[in-house]
Amino acid sequence: MLKMSTLFLRTLRDDPADAEVASHRLLVRAGYIRRIAAGIYSWLPLGVITLRNIENVVRQEMDKAGFQEVHFPALLPREAYEVTHRWEEYGPSLFRLQDRKGGDYLLGPTHEEMFTLMVKGEYSSYKDLPLSIYQIQTKYRDEARPRSGIIRGREFVMKDSYSFDIDDAGLDISYQKHRDAYIRCFDRLGLRYNIVKAVSGAMGGSRSEEFLAPCATGEDTYVLCPNCGYAANVEAMVTKVAEANPSGLPALEELDTPNTPTIDLLVAVMNEKFGGGYTAADTLKNIMVVADGRPLAVLVPGDREVDLKRMQENLAGVHELRVFEEADFAKYPQLVKGYIGPQDVKEFGIALYADPRVAPGTSWISGANKKDLHARFVVNGRDFTPDAYIEAAEVRAGDSCPDCSTEIVIDRAIEIGHIFQLGRKYAEALNLTVLDQNGKSQVVTMGSYGIGVSRAVAAIAEQTSDEIGLNWPAEIAPAKVHIVATGKDGLPFDTALQLGRDLEAVGISVMLDDRRDASPGGKFKDA
Amino acid sequence: MLKMSTLFLRTLRDDPADAEVASHRLLVRAGYIRRIAAGIYSWLPLGVITLRNIENVVRQEMDKAGFQEVHFPALLPREAYEVTHRWEEYGPSLFRLQDRKGGDYLLGPTHEEMFTLMVKGEYSSYKDLPLSIYQIQTKYRDEARPRSGIIRGREFVMKDSYSFDIDDAGLDISYQKHRDAYIRCFDRLGLRYNIVKAVSGAMGGSRSEEFLAPCATGEDTYVLCPNCGYAANVEAMVTKVAEANPSGLPALEELDTPNTPTIDLLVAVMNEKFGGGYTAADTLKNIMVVADGRPLAVLVPGDREVDLKRMQENLAGVHELRVFEEADFAKYPQLVKGYIGPQDVKEFGIALYADPRVAPGTSWISGANKKDLHARFVVNGRDFTPDAYIEAAEVRAGDSCPDCSTEIVIDRAIEIGHIFQLGRKYAEALNLTVLDQNGKSQVVTMGSYGIGVSRAVAAIAEQTSDEIGLNWPAEIAPAKVHIVATGKDGLPFDTALQLGRDLEAVGISVMLDDRRDASPGGKFKDA
Repeated sequence: MLKMSTLFLRTLRDDPADAEVASHRLLVRAGYIRRIAAGIYSWLPLGVITLRNIENVVRQEMDKAGFQEVHFPALLPREAYEVTHRWEEYGPSLFRLQDRKGGDYLLGPTHEEMFTLMVKGEYSSYKDLPLSIYQIQTKYRDEARPRSGIIRGREFVMKDSYSFDIDDAGLDISYQKHRDAYIRCFDRLGLRYNIVKAVSGAMGGSRSEEFLAPCATGEDTYVLCPNCGYAANVEAMVTKVAEANPSGLPALEELDTPNTPTIDLLVAVMNEKFGGGYTAADTLKNIMVVADGRPLAVLVPGDREVDLKRMQENLAGVHELRVFEEADFAKYPQLVKGYIGPQDVKEFGIALYADPRVAPGTSWISGANKKDLHARFVVNGRDFTPDAYIEAAEVRAGDSCPDCSTEIVIDRAIEIGHIFQLGRKYAEALNLTVLDQNGKSQVVTMGSYGIGVSRAVAAIAEQTSDEIGLNWPAEIAPAKVHIVATGKDGLPFDTALQLGRDLEAVGISVMLDDRRDASPGGKFKDA
Repeated sequence: MLKMSTLFLRTLRDDPADAEVASHRLLVRAGYIRRIAAGIYSWLPLGVITLRNIENVVRQEMDKAGFQEVHFPALLPREAYEVTHRWEEYGPSLFRLQDRKGGDYLLGPTHEEMFTLMVKGEYSSYKDLPLSIYQIQTKYRDEARPRSGIIRGREFVMKDSYSFDIDDAGLDISYQKHRDAYIRCFDRLGLRYNIVKAVSGAMGGSRSEEFLAPCATGEDTYVLCPNCGYAANVEAMVTKVAEANPSGLPALEELDTPNTPTIDLLVAVMNEKFGGGYTAADTLKNIMVVADGRPLAVLVPGDREVDLKRMQENLAGVHELRVFEEADFAKYPQLVKGYIGPQDVKEFGIALYADPRVAPGTSWISGANKKDLHARFVVNGRDFTPDAYIEAAEVRAGDSCPDCSTEIVIDRAIEIGHIFQLGRKYAEALNLTVLDQNGKSQVVTMGSYGIGVSRAVAAIAEQTSDEIGLNWPAEIAPAKVHIVATGKDGLPFDTALQLGRDLEAVGISVMLDDRRDASPGGKFKDA
C-alpha cells in the first residue's frame, strides 16, 4: 500500500521553467520525474511504478505472442558497429567512449548488430527459425535537441524486438504477429493511435509502419485521409499526379527578366508581361543540393518548399543531405543563381531529380541558365528529362490522398512504436546464415520492432490528462484505488487503513492518503 | 510455459576457454549468458528469467521493509561527482565520456551523489525523515581485471539503497532495518553467507559489514573464529598484542653484518654469531611506502609481508598506496637499502607507522641505517616511537581472534552485499540539510547499502551447483517444474503438455521438454 504519509513525494505548485508540453509539466509537478541533465531524468517512486506497469504490459504481450526476452549490455564494443558502418553513420548522435585500455566503445542506440550476432552464435539451421527475441532496455542517443521531457530524451527505455526468418514469406508472418501484438499492447495501455505508413528505406519493397499517438504538441506530423483512412507519415506520403499531354504547347520561349531572382518577383514580372493569371504554382523551383557529397538538382513547383527530411528518407542510403553553399556554387560557374533551369543542368554534370508534381508532359516557367533570362513553356519530356522522380516537395493539408484523391488532413503525434522489415542488411553484413532444407546456406531475413516504453509514460499522460491533472488508465496507474482519509478523529483513518488492507488482500493496489497534517482540499487536489 | 522445442537456447558441450570458475563455466554452457567484451555479458532467456527472479526477491524484501524504489540514469553529468572529488578519485575505474557539446559525463559506478541531491530537492524538514530509498540498476566500473564471468564485470546490475536520518540514533535504526532485510533476502535466495566486519573508512566510528558467500574460488578472503563466531574481512581483522615490559633489556647493540640485505641472510648471520634461536619473527621489516605522495615507513615483523590493501583501507582517506621505487629512494639518500631501521627515519622527515604486532616494549633486530650494520635490542618506546599504529601485516590462518584469542581460520568468499554507515560525508559535500524541531539546520546522516544482483546469479550457482550442473533453489529457478516428454508416440507429449498447463493454471511455472528430435538421454542431461 502506498501511504502518502511516508511516500517519497513532493508535488510542486509551479510549472518547471523548461517544460514545453503538458506531460512534462504534469510529470514533474506530480512528482514522477526530475531532470538530471538535458534529456536525462530520474524517476521518483510514482514514476517508477508507472513505468514498470507499462513495461509489464509490454512484456506480457510480447511473451503471449511467443517472443522471448533476452538482455544486452548498453556498453558495447565498436567492432560490430564498424562492420555495419553505423559507428560512423550515426554521427554525433552516438555516445562514444574509451575504456582504460583505449578500446572504443559506444552506448547502444539500438541493438540490431548484437541481436544478429547472438542468433549467429546459437543457431545454424532453418529448423531453428522462425525466432523472435526482444529486450526491454535502456538506450542512449545524444540528441541534438533533447526536449519535451521524457518524450525525446538522451537516456530512455525501449522495448526492441527482432525477428529472424528463412524467407520473405516468413518475415511477413513475423511482421504481422508483431503488428497484432503492438495493437493489443497499445490498446491495453489506453492509447489512441494511428498505424501509418513509413518510408521503408534502403532495403526496398519492405513494409514499415509507425504507431503514432495523436497529440497537439507531438513532434511527428502525418497525413490522414478522412475518407478512406489512408495514413502515412509526411516522409512516406505518396504524390500521385497524372501525366499531362504536352502536344500543342508552344515551343520554349526565353524572356528578358532582369533583376528577378525570386519566385515572387518572377510571378509579378510574368503577370505584368502577359496580363495576369500566373501564380507561383506555374513556376519551377530548381533547388541545388548535395547528397553525401554528390550534387543534385531537384525540381518542385514554385509554390512549395523542398522538404529535405522527406527527400532524404526517400533517397535510399543517403546519410547527409544539404542545400548548396557558396563553395558548391563556386564549383559550377555555369549555374546562374536566380536563373537556374532544368534544361541544361545534366550537361553541367549534375543529376536531375524531380518531385512527382513535376509530372511528364507538364509545362513550366523556369530560369534559362543565363543571367536575367527566364523561359516559359519549359516542358518535361521535351525540354528536360529528369533522371529520377523523388518525393521532395513539402506536404500540405488539402493535398490529394493517393488512394482515393480526397483532401488529406495533417495531424501531429508522438511516435510510440515502429515496426519495420529490415530484410537482410544486418544478416549479410555480419554473415548470419542458416542451412536450408537442401543443406544450402541462406542469409536470414530480419524484422525490427520498437516500442518507446519511457516515452509511452509521457504519451499516455498527454492523451489522458485533463484540466485537473494526470488521469491514468487503470492498467498503468500507480494504484487502482486512491483512498483519502480526512478529519480530526482516528476513526476515518483507521477505517481507511482497514479498507485499504481489504482491497490489497484481494489484489487491488491502493494509495492511501493518511496524512494527518494536510488539509482535505490539498489531499483531494493531490489525488 | 517454457517449451524446449522453441526456447532460444543452445547448451554447449565444452567449457568456454576463458572460464576460471564453476559459475562462469556452467552459466555459459547452460545457455544463460554470453560474453560480449571483457566483463560485459548478454543474457539469454533462461538467464533473464533467473536474473529477474532474483531482482523480484530483492525488490519484495526492500518494499516489505518500507524502502521506496526510485530510478536514476546511468549517464550522469560530472558536476556532483566533482563536488565530492570522486570524478578524480575514482581514477581509471570510472567510465568517462563527453556529449556532442563537449560536456563531461560518467557512467555511474554508484549513486551516492544523485541520491543525496534527490532528497535535497524534495525534503527540508526532520518530519520527512527517516527515509530509505533504493534502485535496481545497471552500474559501470572499468575494472582493471574483469574476471570470473559476471562475478566481477564492468557492466552489472546492483541494488543500491540509501538511508537518510536526522541523527546517529536514527542511522543505527535504519542500518539495522537494512541488515534485517538483507538477511531475509539472502535467506530466500538460498545463499549461505557470513556477515563480516569491514573497515568503516574515513568517516570514523561507524558500522560497516559485508555479506560474504563462502566459495572456494571467491575473490574475497575473510577470517572466521571457530570458537566465538567473530568474522571480519582481512582488511578489518584486528590484531591484539599486549605491551611488553622492556625493563631489563640490554641497550641497543650495533652489529657488523656485511652483505646481509635480506631477512633470510640476517637470520642466518644472527644464528651464526649467537649460536642459534633466532627466526625471522625476531627481526623488523622496514617497508618504505608512498601514501598519496607522502613517504611513510611501516614496521611489520620480519616473518610477515605488508598487505598494502589492508594497510590502505585502514589509512583513512588515502587513495593511492605503493612501495618505494628507485626515484623515491633517490630523494632520501640517508636510507640505506637493506639496512633501514626505525631508529632514525623520523629525523629523515619520514613518518613512522607500526603494525600492532610491533607493540610498545617489544625488542627487535633491525637495520642500523648504516651500510653493513644491523642492531639488536632495538626497543619500541626506547629506541624508536611510532607516530601511529596501523593494521599493515598480512593476516594468516592461526592468528588470534581479537575477541577470544582462538586461532582463526581464513576462508574465501564472494561479496554479495555491503551495508555501511556513510555518515555525513555526502550530505556535507552537497549541503543536504533539514530543519530540526527547533528550526535549526542539521546535516543529514546517511547509510549506504548494496546488493550485487547479477553477481548473485553467479554466487548462487557457485554454491548450489553440483557435479551434474546448475541446481537452483526453487525461488530463483527459471521454472519450478521441468517436465520431460519422451518416446515416439504423441501420447506422452500430449499428456506432458496438459500437465504443464494444469500446473501453470495454479501458478506453478513449468519448463516442458517437448522436443521430438532429441534423445531421452540428451533431454535428461539438459534437465
